[in-house]
Amino acid sequence: MTLTTPVAHGAETGRVDLASLVDQLPAGTLLTDPASTARYSHDEAEWAPWALPLAVARPATSEQVRTIVRWCVAHEVPVVPRGAGTGLSGGANSVSGGIVVSFERMAAVTRIDPVERLAVVQPGVVNDDLRAAVAEHGLWYPPDPASSPWSTIGGNVATNAGGVCCVKYGVTGDYVLALEVVTGTGELVRVGRETAKGVAGYDLVSLLVGSEGTLGLVTEITVRLRPARPAEQTVVGFFDSLVAAGEAVAAVARAGTVPSALELLDRHCLTAVNDWKDLGIEADCEAILLARLDGPGAAGVAEAEAVLAAFEGAGATFAARSEDESEADAMFAARRLAYPALERLGPVLTEDVCVPVGRVAAMLAAVQEIARRHDVLIANIAHAGDGNLHPLIITPAGDDEARVRAQHAFDDIIVEALACGGTVTGEHGVGLLKRAGLAAELPLAVVEMHRAIRRALDPHGVLNPGKVVT
Amino acid sequence: MTLTTPVAHGAETGRVDLASLVDQLPAGTLLTDPASTARYSHDEAEWAPWALPLAVARPATSEQVRTIVRWCVAHEVPVVPRGAGTGLSGGANSVSGGIVVSFERMAAVTRIDPVERLAVVQPGVVNDDLRAAVAEHGLWYPPDPASSPWSTIGGNVATNAGGVCCVKYGVTGDYVLALEVVTGTGELVRVGRETAKGVAGYDLVSLLVGSEGTLGLVTEITVRLRPARPAEQTVVGFFDSLVAAGEAVAAVARAGTVPSALELLDRHCLTAVNDWKDLGIEADCEAILLARLDGPGAAGVAEAEAVLAAFEGAGATFAARSEDESEADAMFAARRLAYPALERLGPVLTEDVCVPVGRVAAMLAAVQEIARRHDVLIANIAHAGDGNLHPLIITPAGDDEARVRAQHAFDDIIVEALACGGTVTGEHGVGLLKRAGLAAELPLAVVEMHRAIRRALDPHGVLNPGKVVT
Repeated sequence: MTLTTPVAHGAETGRVDLASLVDQLPAGTLLTDPASTARYSHDEAEWAPWALPLAVARPATSEQVRTIVRWCVAHEVPVVPRGAGTGLSGGANSVSGGIVVSFERMAAVTRIDPVERLAVVQPGVVNDDLRAAVAEHGLWYPPDPASSPWSTIGGNVATNAGGVCCVKYGVTGDYVLALEVVTGTGELVRVGRETAKGVAGYDLVSLLVGSEGTLGLVTEITVRLRPARPAEQTVVGFFDSLVAAGEAVAAVARAGTVPSALELLDRHCLTAVNDWKDLGIEADCEAILLARLDGPGAAGVAEAEAVLAAFEGAGATFAARSEDESEADAMFAARRLAYPALERLGPVLTEDVCVPVGRVAAMLAAVQEIARRHDVLIANIAHAGDGNLHPLIITPAGDDEARVRAQHAFDDIIVEALACGGTVTGEHGVGLLKRAGLAAELPLAVVEMHRAIRRALDPHGVLNPGKVVT
Repeated sequence: MTLTTPVAHGAETGRVDLASLVDQLPAGTLLTDPASTARYSHDEAEWAPWALPLAVARPATSEQVRTIVRWCVAHEVPVVPRGAGTGLSGGANSVSGGIVVSFERMAAVTRIDPVERLAVVQPGVVNDDLRAAVAEHGLWYPPDPASSPWSTIGGNVATNAGGVCCVKYGVTGDYVLALEVVTGTGELVRVGRETAKGVAGYDLVSLLVGSEGTLGLVTEITVRLRPARPAEQTVVGFFDSLVAAGEAVAAVARAGTVPSALELLDRHCLTAVNDWKDLGIEADCEAILLARLDGPGAAGVAEAEAVLAAFEGAGATFAARSEDESEADAMFAARRLAYPALERLGPVLTEDVCVPVGRVAAMLAAVQEIARRHDVLIANIAHAGDGNLHPLIITPAGDDEARVRAQHAFDDIIVEALACGGTVTGEHGVGLLKRAGLAAELPLAVVEMHRAIRRALDPHGVLNPGKVVT
């Protein structure tokens, strides 16, 4: 069997022969027909460029991943790693002539150790599946991106994914102890440790986490776990402006209380969810804040009272501790459904800026002004407690002019976030959509440090080329 | 003024003229007479090699640090950064012909922000001084190495220092948000962010933390803070063997309780402290465990009861919750005094291995066997709750044969720790003393990744040469 396909990268002949790779892998590992590969050609960043890949590889072992990377190095073919494709920045978008490596066949929870409080997993394990598996041992894996029912730990590691409980418990990277990785030179290595502490050499684990496949392909992840935590209290606040809600977020921080969730939804999100699913949520306000508190026993109640007081002090039109668990769950379900509910209105360009907590109100005001200036609909959901805002720019399907205006709004939000002392991406990653933002955020000398590290670890330039920094 | 001094590194002439550096710095910044420079020639790793430096620089600003590094790059002169000199691995040991950069004149707490819960400090700030400064705002900087009354935040960052509360709250790196750094090419840059989250580019902050001055000179640190925490409960357990104490540590982990401290001291430490200071501590046992628990209110009491039960279940000869705060403080004072108390008996070679919590008992047994085999006195203190053991090998002053036996014991402990799935350094760093251990721990391909990154960020090879990895 000989497969030949045009190549856009590296190989000077312009053509590359896949047969020598096919021969080294079990039958069925490689997909090459466009009907099959199209499904792997991009993540959810549909505004970012992508191309059909040369092939899609679905390895079942770390050694097969190594085989693929070595072949790609030898043939100067780009490698694009892919989890569940739920990314929002284009990090998994395929490039012409490249090989997409999907980890769908590497989805085992290999080990759970309740004494060391760690788990060893393959990259294709779905986030919620890991959470369920460790819960059986009385353990908890905190990182909880909104995509947790679908996204994989490998993808979470690639983007250093955040989530709802990060405001108290940190992000994916805070839970990664060790990685098995295929390097840019085709070596299969382990970095990190299984001990609680360790400083033997550079922190290569943290360097790889969030590197979006540009410094290595992760083939196994050792994650740190926590003991199961107490039940949460919920506090809801209604506000008649986004700015008032933003001020309440700063008031919570000032009170010295650390909630286990502090989420914001605006009226557009509530309306879209109510129009789609009947969750019975009162939406007669401009924004709601949803706080959760998980201090044990009386301490949790005291935390909830402190947050309630902060909401009321910041001018909430209504605020209450939820006594009804199903009502609280409905509120958080609405937060999770906001993105798909808004997508029903048209293509959504998703922002992901993060600003200091004290600047949330100012940033929300700026987003509203930007929406007016560019005549676009911008809905807001936010991990408000850590200043991570997701303005969602929605354009009517097929309206090319609106799309141009949306792009201008997207760019202006980035400028405003940087002016607030923020970052262009809080948790989604740079991928393709935030490359210009990255260049705006980082001084050239720091970009040069990125390039130097990338050249050092990917000397052949095959690892997810074109992503993050070029 | 012209100063010429032999150079052991780089400059092919073998001589270098300091005058061009003197001219660029305020008077008094450089020390060159051996009587002055000798005090800066090594840290507390007196067993590791060191040499008198060409000069000691005491810059007062980041720009002066940049001036020094640029001069060193131009003249191929090694730069050795130094905090308080309390390091235990030789990371700050001077090299012949090099310039030691001491941060003693850069010791300001520049900013404390209670809303964003962060502080910005110069590298020369002493750990306890930072803790005191933020406590005035109701905030807490957790990392608490035993050296906290003397060691600096810059030094803590260089080694990614641990401490007593790390078992619950993590290490220095978990609290570093951003760094200002002079790079190996003499650029003054900022990496990291002031926001709670951020994934714009590679995690250069984590790469620099723990790199022991080999990837850049840190000139400012932005640290994350926590709200002040509740008062701690103390639980003490006495054990008639080190192994029994080690088993109690695993029992605490199995119980799902996370103490805010879980420290071990053996009989040698208790005796040495009692002989030196009269702290009135009962020492009729082979080992004691000191646990602290800081859950709020009733939760903290329940945690203390769980630890007490774990101690008793593992065979403690006596265990109790301390009702007397001064008694509890005396116990922790003894832990802090153990190292200087033992130093009175002779030179101490300090180990710093870290093993999985379930292997603490086995590792302590192995250390005892190694002491017997090599006929050396080994005392044990440990951050037992995270498996971080500090076997302290003590030799009579001037006994060269004992020194050789001590070195063999040191090497054997490393071998045993690796066999237990551990690491050669939990919190002290590689410096010079653990270079061979690092080579034993890391596969060659991972060492090559270290070298590639080091070459990428220190292309002229001037940053703390000879340390960590060569």
